[in-house]
Amino acid sequence: MKIYEQRSAPNPRRVRIFLAEKGLLDQVTFVQLDMDKGELETEAFARKNAWQRVPVLELDDGTCLAETVAICRYLEELHPEPSLFGRSALERAQVEMWNRRVELGFFFQISQAFRHTHPAMAPLETPQVPAWGEANKARALQSLARLNDALAERRFIAADVFTVADITAMCAVNFMRPVRLKRPEGLEHLERWYSEVTERPSATA
Amino acid sequence: MKIYEQRSAPNPRRVRIFLAEKGLLDQVTFVQLDMDKGELETEAFARKNAWQRVPVLELDDGTCLAETVAICRYLEELHPEPSLFGRSALERAQVEMWNRRVELGFFFQISQAFRHTHPAMAPLETPQVPAWGEANKARALQSLARLNDALAERRFIAADVFTVADITAMCAVNFMRPVRLKRPEGLEHLERWYSEVTERPSATA
Repeated sequence: MKIYEQRSAPNPRRVRIFLAEKGLLDQVTFVQLDMDKGELETEAFARKNAWQRVPVLELDDGTCLAETVAICRYLEELHPEPSLFGRSALERAQVEMWNRRVELGFFFQISQAFRHTHPAMAPLETPQVPAWGEANKARALQSLARLNDALAERRFIAADVFTVADITAMCAVNFMRPVRLKRPEGLEHLERWYSEVTERPSATA
Repeated sequence: MKIYEQRSAPNPRRVRIFLAEKGLLDQVTFVQLDMDKGELETEAFARKNAWQRVPVLELDDGTCLAETVAICRYLEELHPEPSLFGRSALERAQVEMWNRRVELGFFFQISQAFRHTHPAMAPLETPQVPAWGEANKARALQSLARLNDALAERRFIAADVFTVADITAMCAVNFMRPVRLKRPEGLEHLERWYSEVTERPSATA
């Protein structure tokens, strides 16, 4: 298996952490692409992913899969243990619910704040809309408070075990740094969870 | 089973179409909530979904599931036939990939254009950022061209059979109307697909 990625970007990191949790990192060859050098815009890459985003998983027969969660879900089917998408129909639905809440309601806000306020993103995000970037900062902090409430109820975001929703949330929290957003004081359950997930060996993958 | 929804909103429609395709519509009691009247802001509803969005599926034991795709995925587990999420590991990954491309790269753009340019959304979307709404219209049309390319290759969006990705795409195309976006001429594969999916009995669910 081959993965096309840009190592510094948060979505490829989600896949690397997922692979590390499954013990699969050494089964994958990583190919680095640099979006600042236009390496996602080539025709060769468009044949692998017409939507021109990383990460892309290329199987040995040349089939390419794009979209972070689609790649993770495929890896879960091939290597079900340890389960990162839930262990029963209801838990799988709850993991999906929480992964989407975190992704669409938190990760996305941070990413929009980054893309619409960071000067390095101006050539890629046309038009850059700074007012939209700023609006997302307040929303991201509101979501963080909601995650703190959830983490008052259980050890991890979606369940009593570590799941893909924790990976999405941890990558989003780390993505706050380039946006210069700080975690507000007083979110004690979030801080307890953050210490635990960042100490896992997978966190540095 | 009970579903809390607002009938006119596009995400509840995705779940109704999914239920209709599964032949399950008559097993669900629908409860209407009106977001313009603040009915998603009540404490009673926040106990069902802390993120205060519809649809919400309430099981007979009171467990509540939010997020459109989490609800559909749970229904797929309980009622696997006809399969709407794929019939093999690879097809399930491809359906996930396409459903996400359609949702994050098309449905979302239409929804942002609506929320940030429509006067009715001003009280809910604070601040409304009209420049962001407008920027999304061009992106939505670019995605529509990419869907047309995909539909040149196969009968439906993700596979040779109808899947959840077709439901997401059809609801997004219909959501173009309140945004006053028209389908550009010349997307013949998209038009062929759109005629076929809107003629299915589920389309009016």
